[in-house]
Amino acid sequence: MIVLGIDPGLASTGWALVERAGSRLRAVDCGTLRTSPRTPHPERLRALFDGVTDILRRGPVGGAAVESWFIHPVSRAAMGLAEARGAVLVAIASAGIHVAEYPPTEIKLAVTGSGRAEKDQVHAMVARLTGRDAESDHAADAIAAAICFLHREPLRAAIRNAQ
Amino acid sequence: MIVLGIDPGLASTGWALVERAGSRLRAVDCGTLRTSPRTPHPERLRALFDGVTDILRRGPVGGAAVESWFIHPVSRAAMGLAEARGAVLVAIASAGIHVAEYPPTEIKLAVTGSGRAEKDQVHAMVARLTGRDAESDHAADAIAAAICFLHREPLRAAIRNAQ
Repeated sequence: MIVLGIDPGLASTGWALVERAGSRLRAVDCGTLRTSPRTPHPERLRALFDGVTDILRRGPVGGAAVESWFIHPVSRAAMGLAEARGAVLVAIASAGIHVAEYPPTEIKLAVTGSGRAEKDQVHAMVARLTGRDAESDHAADAIAAAICFLHREPLRAAIRNAQ
Repeated sequence: MIVLGIDPGLASTGWALVERAGSRLRAVDCGTLRTSPRTPHPERLRALFDGVTDILRRGPVGGAAVESWFIHPVSRAAMGLAEARGAVLVAIASAGIHVAEYPPTEIKLAVTGSGRAEKDQVHAMVARLTGRDAESDHAADAIAAAICFLHREPLRAAIRNAQ
């Protein structure tokens, strides 16, 4: 199964398609969607929506993981991030794909064993696990989100089925 | 010209189609898009996106006005609102329609003459201006946003053209 991972942001949204075959993980592809502050705000959100929609058209995707948030300081940046998440979530839901949302600590825990790992630890561990050096920290975070999905969702599905 | 006004919210998004003919304003239609907390989060955002897309398909819309925000307390509700705004803005931008964003004070000022007007003052003034008693405060706020657009955008366009 291939899982889409997303680290959302208005200026930079990391994305990754990650596959698990048995116990091996492979980053099929990853990248960063960038939008310019000089572009009108609604067009930036549309570009993220269109970008995610295009990625989902490349091939069958079995699920998606989007990094969520804890408490952010009140700021324009935090609201921009939430709006970007809205655009990304709509694109995935419109494609009919199941989305899981994980807070950053849960994603870090899944790939490094610590919920308080630093960005470069996540980046290095993602490279070791998938054999791919991501082009940006956002793309590495997206791979990490997809890995978190691959670890967690089979267990959640088993629990749902057992209830 | 018909303008779409939107008062975005995750649980309730008010919408209105408002027309100006000369100095007269008419609320062509208005309503409230509601989503349930029992629906998965991405599906709620998708429902808002689909709802706005459907409204825009009813006929030619010349512009859109979406209520923006000042500073909200840090809360799940504020982030949900921002995500809902993201879904709504993407739907409008995907339809190729120009969107203006106005803070609540600017919308209140446009319809009541005071940026600090209460909800029921806005609701009553909107009914007086358009001859339509909106079904909800959200729908009344959406009409008010559209009126703000109709007041402001001709001036902005004139300034742009004069530069």
